Amino acid sequence: MAKPKNAFYAQSGGVTAVINASAAGVIETARKHKDRIGRVYAGRNGIIGALTEDLIDTSRESAKAVAALRHTPGGAFGSCRYKLKSLEENRAQYERLIEVFQAHDIGYFFYNGGGDSADTCHKVSQLSKKMGYPVQAIHVPKTVDNDLPLTDTCPGFGSVAKYVAVSTREAALDVKSMSRTSTKVFILEVMGRHAGWIAAAAGLAGENPGDPPHVILLPEVTFDQEAFLKKVRQTVEKYDYCVVVVSEGTRNPDGSFLAEAGTKDAFGHSQLGGVGPFIAQMVKDKLGYKYHWAVADYLQRSARHIASKTDADQAYAVGKAAVEYAIKGDNAVMVTIERSSDKPYRWKLGKANLSRVANHEKTLPKRFITRDGFGITAQARRYLAPLIKGEDYPPYKNGLPDYVTLKNVAVKKKLKTDFDI
Amino acid sequence: MAKPKNAFYAQSGGVTAVINASAAGVIETARKHKDRIGRVYAGRNGIIGALTEDLIDTSRESAKAVAALRHTPGGAFGSCRYKLKSLEENRAQYERLIEVFQAHDIGYFFYNGGGDSADTCHKVSQLSKKMGYPVQAIHVPKTVDNDLPLTDTCPGFGSVAKYVAVSTREAALDVKSMSRTSTKVFILEVMGRHAGWIAAAAGLAGENPGDPPHVILLPEVTFDQEAFLKKVRQTVEKYDYCVVVVSEGTRNPDGSFLAEAGTKDAFGHSQLGGVGPFIAQMVKDKLGYKYHWAVADYLQRSARHIASKTDADQAYAVGKAAVEYAIKGDNAVMVTIERSSDKPYRWKLGKANLSRVANHEKTLPKRFITRDGFGITAQARRYLAPLIKGEDYPPYKNGLPDYVTLKNVAVKKKLKTDFDI
Repeated sequence: MAKPKNAFYAQSGGVTAVINASAAGVIETARKHKDRIGRVYAGRNGIIGALTEDLIDTSRESAKAVAALRHTPGGAFGSCRYKLKSLEENRAQYERLIEVFQAHDIGYFFYNGGGDSADTCHKVSQLSKKMGYPVQAIHVPKTVDNDLPLTDTCPGFGSVAKYVAVSTREAALDVKSMSRTSTKVFILEVMGRHAGWIAAAAGLAGENPGDPPHVILLPEVTFDQEAFLKKVRQTVEKYDYCVVVVSEGTRNPDGSFLAEAGTKDAFGHSQLGGVGPFIAQMVKDKLGYKYHWAVADYLQRSARHIASKTDADQAYAVGKAAVEYAIKGDNAVMVTIERSSDKPYRWKLGKANLSRVANHEKTLPKRFITRDGFGITAQARRYLAPLIKGEDYPPYKNGLPDYVTLKNVAVKKKLKTDFDI
Repeated sequence: MAKPKNAFYAQSGGVTAVINASAAGVIETARKHKDRIGRVYAGRNGIIGALTEDLIDTSRESAKAVAALRHTPGGAFGSCRYKLKSLEENRAQYERLIEVFQAHDIGYFFYNGGGDSADTCHKVSQLSKKMGYPVQAIHVPKTVDNDLPLTDTCPGFGSVAKYVAVSTREAALDVKSMSRTSTKVFILEVMGRHAGWIAAAAGLAGENPGDPPHVILLPEVTFDQEAFLKKVRQTVEKYDYCVVVVSEGTRNPDGSFLAEAGTKDAFGHSQLGGVGPFIAQMVKDKLGYKYHWAVADYLQRSARHIASKTDADQAYAVGKAAVEYAIKGDNAVMVTIERSSDKPYRWKLGKANLSRVANHEKTLPKRFITRDGFGITAQARRYLAPLIKGEDYPPYKNGLPDYVTLKNVAVKKKLKTDFDI
């Protein structure tokens, strides 16, 4: 019998609280099918590791270490922001990838990322066939932005959503209790450059009319300063405080980012700060309220300590399914999550052809946004609520989460050529 | 037998993740001693509630609701930033307080706050005696800043410390995995205007040399731009990334806050942003590294979801002890936490005379700061480590912490006079 082919796994783009759970799903499942899959090599710093032939031998990691990936945030093998050019522009990149795969007897390519990596995955599958060294390429979805098409949700999103909803609820209690003499308006800036899923999830913090957050600013809704300030003023007059959640992708009528326009001085020099402090300053200048603002930044997407169990389970499941699909002969597909029911929440895995995934970005549908543009609808809640359900605490040691650091032993290089990134 | 006197409880200053645990300690313990303490009235929005005779009758809250305070952040009765003036400046304020206490048959004053409220507590005790209506005043310590003297630590601090250490560890994993092509320097701004305890606690995130955070900027160490930039550059050269935790209280050699100086434009106008984005901009301008920054702001002090069990237990215990001390006849004291051993950590409660508490601010001792000023020593670790130990998760419902909102029923006013705040 022929020796089974090895697999290559890489993490792509911004990491998440649960991307390593997908890695654990891939590695543990491959280990269960040694007759079909040899070693799992991981790319050091993502696809760059493949291009530079800097592979990590995951077979050198103990079962315990791999299991611990399930509760460890960040990218255990390193990730990168490195988009492969189009085939026409830089065919050499793809040829190099396939050359490295061939050198290391790699027949499976598991790429864990967002839209760009789905595209790469697709091209590798096509080109490898043309080049006579066919590689089965399976895309493992991941993005906190939740903007991939054809899947009900994206692993990574549910945990950010939970972090943002929990943080909003907590900070709102703080602000509410101090508003008599102190802060009236609190602004939380969250991620989501092109889609407002994360900001929308903050809406789960409130359950009844009047509950915070009182205002959500979304990339999908053009910013209307007058309407915004009116809403803030009315909220403070009614409740004595106002909680605002603003997506980093919120835009002016001319399409520019709010933060962009707001942070240039009279000479056009860039000034400090993001959209959170920008909105805060606007509230102070126009309404005179005391304010505070927070920018969660990486804290939100690495907060494994408050991960959603649903999300962590799904992240593992898509990694596991990727290997199972590969073994069954699938190629050029993305693993998808399919929802069959909101309440009770029921989901199963599926797959979508990669040709259908690329270059689609899923934004918040209109029916998820309230008429005034500042809140989420009951439909949005039905969609979002199950995604933050369940807690999945990591183990602790000395009061801190006990996250694993892998050995990340390099595979010996076989090629004589370097490749410049 | 005479009817037992009622008690007055108020929350003061910035709230914390566990101040309500102290409230639970006070109320539950008072309820166990109905022969000695009548009702517990709480001040709506802190001491302002006493001055305006806006009292909340906590006896209207169920045992279940009071127990839920133990896991609910923020100030359940409202707090305020309102410092009573000196006796000479505004004796009328104190006389009003005592008038309200007398009208509602209040013989116990439990004031839950930091240094200022300790001072108020002390004065109320003294003046009430002079006025012929002696009130037993007990101070229940609370401050995330950990700057109260005579107590080993301050309830509220341990949970912020845990939040900051956990968040630093998590965000660092994110940055580390992306540093090949993306962010090299990550800056987290934390609270602590006058003392660096919170920033120092971030140091617990790293356990071995080279572990993040690589640089901690403290109010106790005058900012040296050259040394700072050198340290950042060396760290990036060695590890490919650098994590910086900066206290909002970090100062320039001239004593001004870093953020203050950095956020004025050429005309002296205030610009957006705090010290986090200011440091980020400096790193970019001087070293050219890609950066990200986060400002945790209220998220850190309201993060009950990641509270320290040690802290939550101590917060409850100081509330309970305050009532027990009062019953034993104590007056004009602050409940203190005394440490008898670091490892294993052992603590008990004590008390300190309020005359010794006022107007002292405890900053980080020199022996807790490394020679270069950018890190914490082994001694600091020994002190800090036990304070973040243990998890004390709140109950969850639908993926969110199930925090309580009290009814906060007002006590009927008895006085005919208003009091302007």
